[in-house]
Amino acid sequence: MNNKLNKAERLSYITKILVENPSKVFTLQYFSEILDCAKSTLSEDVDVIGKLLKSTNQGEIYSLAGASGGVYYAPTFTKEQMEDEKIELCKNLNDKKRIITGGYLYMNDIFYDPRKLKKIARAMVTSFLHQEIDYVVTIETKGIPLATVLAGMLNKPIIIVRKSARLTEGPTIQMNYLAGSSRTIKTMALPIRALERGSKVLFVDDFMKAGGTAKGVIDLMKEFDVKVVGVSVVMATKEPVKKLVENYYSLIELEDIDEERKTIKIYPKK
Amino acid sequence: MNNKLNKAERLSYITKILVENPSKVFTLQYFSEILDCAKSTLSEDVDVIGKLLKSTNQGEIYSLAGASGGVYYAPTFTKEQMEDEKIELCKNLNDKKRIITGGYLYMNDIFYDPRKLKKIARAMVTSFLHQEIDYVVTIETKGIPLATVLAGMLNKPIIIVRKSARLTEGPTIQMNYLAGSSRTIKTMALPIRALERGSKVLFVDDFMKAGGTAKGVIDLMKEFDVKVVGVSVVMATKEPVKKLVENYYSLIELEDIDEERKTIKIYPKK
Repeated sequence: MNNKLNKAERLSYITKILVENPSKVFTLQYFSEILDCAKSTLSEDVDVIGKLLKSTNQGEIYSLAGASGGVYYAPTFTKEQMEDEKIELCKNLNDKKRIITGGYLYMNDIFYDPRKLKKIARAMVTSFLHQEIDYVVTIETKGIPLATVLAGMLNKPIIIVRKSARLTEGPTIQMNYLAGSSRTIKTMALPIRALERGSKVLFVDDFMKAGGTAKGVIDLMKEFDVKVVGVSVVMATKEPVKKLVENYYSLIELEDIDEERKTIKIYPKK
Repeated sequence: MNNKLNKAERLSYITKILVENPSKVFTLQYFSEILDCAKSTLSEDVDVIGKLLKSTNQGEIYSLAGASGGVYYAPTFTKEQMEDEKIELCKNLNDKKRIITGGYLYMNDIFYDPRKLKKIARAMVTSFLHQEIDYVVTIETKGIPLATVLAGMLNKPIIIVRKSARLTEGPTIQMNYLAGSSRTIKTMALPIRALERGSKVLFVDDFMKAGGTAKGVIDLMKEFDVKVVGVSVVMATKEPVKKLVENYYSLIELEDIDEERKTIKIYPKK
């Protein structure tokens, strides 16, 4: 950098780099070289930014000690922000205009909007930010934008399980599974080179009914020697209470869509 | 906010909000209320941030005058950064380990990685940042993560064209089209309520050969009274030189994959 920055400019620059790269660790050495500034000064700068973000509920700055140490920005929500987001989502979804013949709910305007996904992903990711996760896994198609935004917050790649094998993706592991709600046999497929053996993944999807898809993905991951360390969906149905997966997170719960009476019952999940 | 911030903290806070919401316009009034600070002071703050980002090649801050005025962060690349990104992408792709039986190229590790997509999308979006675009359109599946990241930079929703109509998405316009390269008839479908009549969209995809898919999407959009104002793909094949769409952007060009000799020829597009 040509001109040495003053304190205000340094704070702005560091904030920019950290916020644009959530969960990515930057060493103080990195900033020290770019900004031509002592690490002790930068350490104070990062402290100021961390306190500022925390006090304004704008996420958090974490420090890692040791040789691989550094600082990173975590786009966390407070408990209150998380509850607010659930309530807003329910309000948005409990709109009878969304009801589609067959008792379905039109939700593309939410799941395909990066602005809304940013808030949803933030509410979902807060529980997983400090867990060891190598990939975010989803199954095509509707959950892909959400998985992309969420993986961006974790600074990890996504894995998209396909509904059939593709010529263009090379050798593939293909598997049949029972879609829990409709009791029909479906297929999922993933290229062999898609992920490394021994990895840990977070499975993310827009919707869960019986949990057959989530269970299928967990089984498929076993074929890759990969462990699913979390299952997180935006909305799960109240019934069946017992899902095919034991542990899962959901932001909101769908109790009922009554096509005839034009009523929808969606609540924040406790 | 409880305590009034000093200049350095103000700059950090404003940078945080702007950078986390690319292309979203914030009024000075908005910051004035949150930060309890005069608009003239904030205007100077934003100036400092804008100059800092520009001088460090970290994107730009734009101001809009008038009643709907305000400031926003644009994640632009300089020409040099754009060329660097193309070269890096070619280097990454020109790796014979990527060759798949049938003469295909394995690219999921790039197109499914938000970290790499951020740089690719940035190189693609720079030309479209100040154009009037209402939606970013793509077709399932491989281009969806890219479209999501790119739409996030434009602060717009994405539209995902499906390969068949879904019960769960309500009434749909379905259309057959000729996939240019294989001369086979394929189907694309989009829910009627997916986008507003009279909109302008940018079509984004990972790959283009003859351009049949892009042409199909342009035709489908006509059924919605929607205009495709740009076609942007990451990689296009050199042959056929004459594509089925007249104008398109691509970052890089695929000349040849020789499965037998294990050679790949991919170059930055001029």
